[in-house]
Amino acid sequence: MKLIKKVNILIVGLGLLGGSYAKGLKKLGFTVNAITKDRFSIDYAMENGIIDNGTTDVNPEMVAEADLVVFALYPHTFIEWIKANQQYFKSGAVITDVTGVKGCVVHEIQDILREDVEYIAAHPMAGKEVSGVVNSDDTIFKGANYIVVPTEKNTPEAIELCRNLGEILGFKQVAELSVEEHDRMIAFLSQLTHCIAVSLMCCNNTPGLESYTGDSFRDLTRIARINDEMWSELFLSNREVLLEEMERFRSSFDELYEKIKDGDRDGMRQMMRLSTERRKLFDKKDK
Amino acid sequence: MKLIKKVNILIVGLGLLGGSYAKGLKKLGFTVNAITKDRFSIDYAMENGIIDNGTTDVNPEMVAEADLVVFALYPHTFIEWIKANQQYFKSGAVITDVTGVKGCVVHEIQDILREDVEYIAAHPMAGKEVSGVVNSDDTIFKGANYIVVPTEKNTPEAIELCRNLGEILGFKQVAELSVEEHDRMIAFLSQLTHCIAVSLMCCNNTPGLESYTGDSFRDLTRIARINDEMWSELFLSNREVLLEEMERFRSSFDELYEKIKDGDRDGMRQMMRLSTERRKLFDKKDK
Repeated sequence: MKLIKKVNILIVGLGLLGGSYAKGLKKLGFTVNAITKDRFSIDYAMENGIIDNGTTDVNPEMVAEADLVVFALYPHTFIEWIKANQQYFKSGAVITDVTGVKGCVVHEIQDILREDVEYIAAHPMAGKEVSGVVNSDDTIFKGANYIVVPTEKNTPEAIELCRNLGEILGFKQVAELSVEEHDRMIAFLSQLTHCIAVSLMCCNNTPGLESYTGDSFRDLTRIARINDEMWSELFLSNREVLLEEMERFRSSFDELYEKIKDGDRDGMRQMMRLSTERRKLFDKKDK
Repeated sequence: MKLIKKVNILIVGLGLLGGSYAKGLKKLGFTVNAITKDRFSIDYAMENGIIDNGTTDVNPEMVAEADLVVFALYPHTFIEWIKANQQYFKSGAVITDVTGVKGCVVHEIQDILREDVEYIAAHPMAGKEVSGVVNSDDTIFKGANYIVVPTEKNTPEAIELCRNLGEILGFKQVAELSVEEHDRMIAFLSQLTHCIAVSLMCCNNTPGLESYTGDSFRDLTRIARINDEMWSELFLSNREVLLEEMERFRSSFDELYEKIKDGDRDGMRQMMRLSTERRKLFDKKDK
């Protein structure tokens, strides 16, 4: 299958990411349908030309028409959906997803999925601190990474199709990682940072602090505004790896604490110089 | 003394902040001289119209002409400078500073200072990840806070003059805090956040991480590019309070760790909802 305009695309789960996929794909000329649990999201998306058609129940005909199905659900809902409805897929359909953790969905779904349907996992590393289709916005893909997460069960054709989807949606970089590499990377770069922001925001209740806040504190806590339903599930879906990454950070933080306590100025400066040096690598390349 | 244009201002220490003060004050029409240790900074500032005159040695005549002296030095250098050169001050002169920690300078300097000169402490909460007069920029004051830190030794006139300095430099908010309130607030909002960023940047050396970095990690580590000489001194100058704030954060981080480890989803969600709620207070008001 090639991603040409006659390809019929179904989005399951019309939230921020599902809606942003729909918006981008519709602009590119694809037929885009959607299934999502709440009526308002379907109505909003239809009225605003984000999708062609949509239903709140799983409509067997709509599923059967789809060549490509994109799942933008929470991990456990994604698995349940496949178990309950995979009999409706068209033979030869390809399914992909936007799930932020892979180990908890990829192997299980590839194991139970019909032989004539292929699931190729992907993680668009884009988002906002707001949710819902009303906030969907396909420009969030512009500077972002799109990670394809193939296993030994995937065909080169499906991997290519999935990469192509990231490219046409306008991601800055399309890359491939194994399930284990992906979940380790996400635990450190994304989940740990959210843990830090939440902890920092929870630890001090002094009134009036906000009047003196500079950009450092604001930057560190921007992501402390968090969708608790989604993130608690993502944390628990990657628990072992996340705990290891939290321990890694904690031991570095404790090291700095001890150096400050001991008045070890050289040791502190060494850590600061290392962090300064490493941070340069992370500057945005387009700046 | 009122801040009218005939007031002669001397900046001691022409780095990023000293240079930014000089730039702003010169544009407002004041006579601005500077004393700083390296020749290049003086030459650069003269050539670019940032100051009227400058020297690398302490010039007694230049000090004696100044009605207002702004110290933009490291804490220990500031104290040494006062001890060595306070005999040159004009009687009635007012001195102020930009030091990021107050407990380590304010009491000592107010104790040793001549009776006919007044030191009113201030902290302009503005900065950049770069240093030196070549990077000085008076627009960094625009959205920032300026904190006046008076003690019982200060006169209402000097406090008013110091507030006025913050106002004419264009700070968004001018506030007053006691030395203890200031150092506690700085330990939490600024020093702790730098400790977190440095620790996070130091704890993982996996090659290629930067290719997958999203904005969360970038935002959390922006301040990991740090002037190690200055910050190690500031941390140690506020050691006890900073260690307490680090412990405060660590116990919140550990609490989240335990909840994830125990699979306590409700407990995790409770922390996330608290952090989401609190973070709203910290949004920039002008956005």
